Amino acid sequence: MREVAVIGVGLTKFGELWDKSFRNLISEAGAKAIIDSGISGREIDALYVGSMSAGRFVGQEHVGALVADSSGFAHMHIPSIRVESADASGGLAFRQGYFSVASGMNDIVVIGGVEKMTDVVGSEATDTLATGLDQEWEAFFGSTLAGTYAMIATRHMYDYGTTREQLAKVAVKNHANGALNPYAQFKKAIPIESILNAPMTAYPLGMLDCAPVSDGATALILCAMEKAKKYTDNPVKIIGTSQASDIFAVHGRNNICTFQSSVYAAKKAYTQAGISAEDIDVAEVHDCYTIAEILAIEDLGFVKKGEGGMAIDNKITTLDGKTPVNPSGGLKAKGHPVGATGVAQIAEIVFQLRGDAEKRQVKNAKIGLAHNVGGAGASCVVTLLEAI
Amino acid sequence: MREVAVIGVGLTKFGELWDKSFRNLISEAGAKAIIDSGISGREIDALYVGSMSAGRFVGQEHVGALVADSSGFAHMHIPSIRVESADASGGLAFRQGYFSVASGMNDIVVIGGVEKMTDVVGSEATDTLATGLDQEWEAFFGSTLAGTYAMIATRHMYDYGTTREQLAKVAVKNHANGALNPYAQFKKAIPIESILNAPMTAYPLGMLDCAPVSDGATALILCAMEKAKKYTDNPVKIIGTSQASDIFAVHGRNNICTFQSSVYAAKKAYTQAGISAEDIDVAEVHDCYTIAEILAIEDLGFVKKGEGGMAIDNKITTLDGKTPVNPSGGLKAKGHPVGATGVAQIAEIVFQLRGDAEKRQVKNAKIGLAHNVGGAGASCVVTLLEAI
Repeated sequence: MREVAVIGVGLTKFGELWDKSFRNLISEAGAKAIIDSGISGREIDALYVGSMSAGRFVGQEHVGALVADSSGFAHMHIPSIRVESADASGGLAFRQGYFSVASGMNDIVVIGGVEKMTDVVGSEATDTLATGLDQEWEAFFGSTLAGTYAMIATRHMYDYGTTREQLAKVAVKNHANGALNPYAQFKKAIPIESILNAPMTAYPLGMLDCAPVSDGATALILCAMEKAKKYTDNPVKIIGTSQASDIFAVHGRNNICTFQSSVYAAKKAYTQAGISAEDIDVAEVHDCYTIAEILAIEDLGFVKKGEGGMAIDNKITTLDGKTPVNPSGGLKAKGHPVGATGVAQIAEIVFQLRGDAEKRQVKNAKIGLAHNVGGAGASCVVTLLEAI
Repeated sequence: MREVAVIGVGLTKFGELWDKSFRNLISEAGAKAIIDSGISGREIDALYVGSMSAGRFVGQEHVGALVADSSGFAHMHIPSIRVESADASGGLAFRQGYFSVASGMNDIVVIGGVEKMTDVVGSEATDTLATGLDQEWEAFFGSTLAGTYAMIATRHMYDYGTTREQLAKVAVKNHANGALNPYAQFKKAIPIESILNAPMTAYPLGMLDCAPVSDGATALILCAMEKAKKYTDNPVKIIGTSQASDIFAVHGRNNICTFQSSVYAAKKAYTQAGISAEDIDVAEVHDCYTIAEILAIEDLGFVKKGEGGMAIDNKITTLDGKTPVNPSGGLKAKGHPVGATGVAQIAEIVFQLRGDAEKRQVKNAKIGLAHNVGGAGASCVVTLLEAI
């Protein structure tokens, strides 16, 4: 298979965007990515789009067809493929589009991720997020995503001595980073007291330990490396991509404090790229809840299992730490429009590797990792990128 | 890219299957396909599954993770990818899985298609099928899929003189075929009088012009051709695959009596395979409504535009006609569990090309076509297969 590069990035702001519809969001992100890349729309061979639940959030399935039409590509009759894996939908769409270029089938594809989550009432957003859990064995009995991660957090505290304060410090760090990101939903640093004193969602997770409900979209242009130099001086090379599954319902797993999907996906991606966790200069990880970032840095091998909380205390993951994590602000502060998240994580890594991340730039970032989890870890996609 | 073969087929019966859940259906189809192929579960590299709207029909997104788990593959951590394109989801999942093998990334993959549509109340099934239309410009204002196809039918009658009786004869033919198919939802021939006198759904389409609401699943095993002979003496080769888009809302199209997505997809697939419509020995086409089969045989080039109705009168598409269409009974009689349909169409073509179609066997079938449409034609997938 041939080498593939990211040559363009486009993002909408993330937030409660009452004046923008699902189709407005993805069209805006796509147009920005095309402009950023310098390609012409006529050169695009296919669209790949990740969306978790447009069917429930905005009453729209046939998402690929909608995106092709609203982006102005329907009259060209090009293929448009919607991929879903709960909140790992974006990462998975990227991976499918990557293969289509790596295999030689396509030369240039657009990867989109989009969700419009705020057009709902009552508990609909929570209910729809719970469709990322096992409906018959978890959601049906009242499990929510927050409740599930809360169970994982209490077990992590019991097994490894992780503290409430360490969880809160994940949010402090990510809000501090988000304050530097013009695309973030919450551009605001928050002191630890606010996080500790926020209304409880599910013990030990308070409201400010949880990623928000968000609207937003992101798009990327992928191009065969052999043609990328025609468009840009700084293509970012994809050096690893992997996906792994795990037992769906959390109660079926041997150890709820490890996502085996993350462990396997990371191992496969590192092997493909010929690197190890030590080589990662910057990472965007799936911090849908603060505990999730602690699991992630352990499962990805940045620190040993059980030492994630301590790593936060020791500032290993801050912008100037050994392995900066979530410079964008993460899902926590940047926002979490679920289908867009995986694409937005890769977009941030591309900014970092191109040196375009402005005030949140990680110094000398050459290799970056994006880690996108579905639901409570039943699927995971890991992507590795390198500046060339 | 290398050659790819279908080496295994598994189907559930289609119908109102009150005693089987979404996960039961896909697991049953998958297990049957694995047994049919003679592979071991440990040889599977990835799962691809098509489902239109599990999120709305059964409250389950994260469909890939569910399928990996319920089929017993989660502990192997293999990737599982859910693909959606309304009722073309199955055909599109097949196409993505095909590329993963053709590119050399995978050697053996399982393609699944599944929908559980009968666990709903009131107008939910109709509403969810309408999410395959443009929600903001069609469904929101009350358009349904049946209403949209009814408009297309009246225009086809006006432009080309197509008659109510010709529409009904499509259903007569497909029910006659379905009566010979052990997997069909309706194993019953129906006289034309019953179809003409059925309650009206949307003029000119009566209840028996419409595919039913169905539960069901189908699975296929794809294998690199170079390894296929290890498992089977009669691999069926994939010689063409294509996908095309069209303007989403029907009112935006120049001519509503042609699905440009079908025309383009067919053209591309024929070119890839180096054949023409003349070479097709048997076809499964997307007859969600009787008018849809008439459009299909025109758009695929079996007959000229406008002559589809006459072709039905002249029995060109019966089991012993020049180009037999929908020997399985089609969506009309076999049933239409929307996410499963595209995979089930290919399964029928595989049966036909292997000579396994029993009483509905088309004589000397060497090349077959499957034609899977999303919604009212905004997406289409065409697959060409050949007996070797």
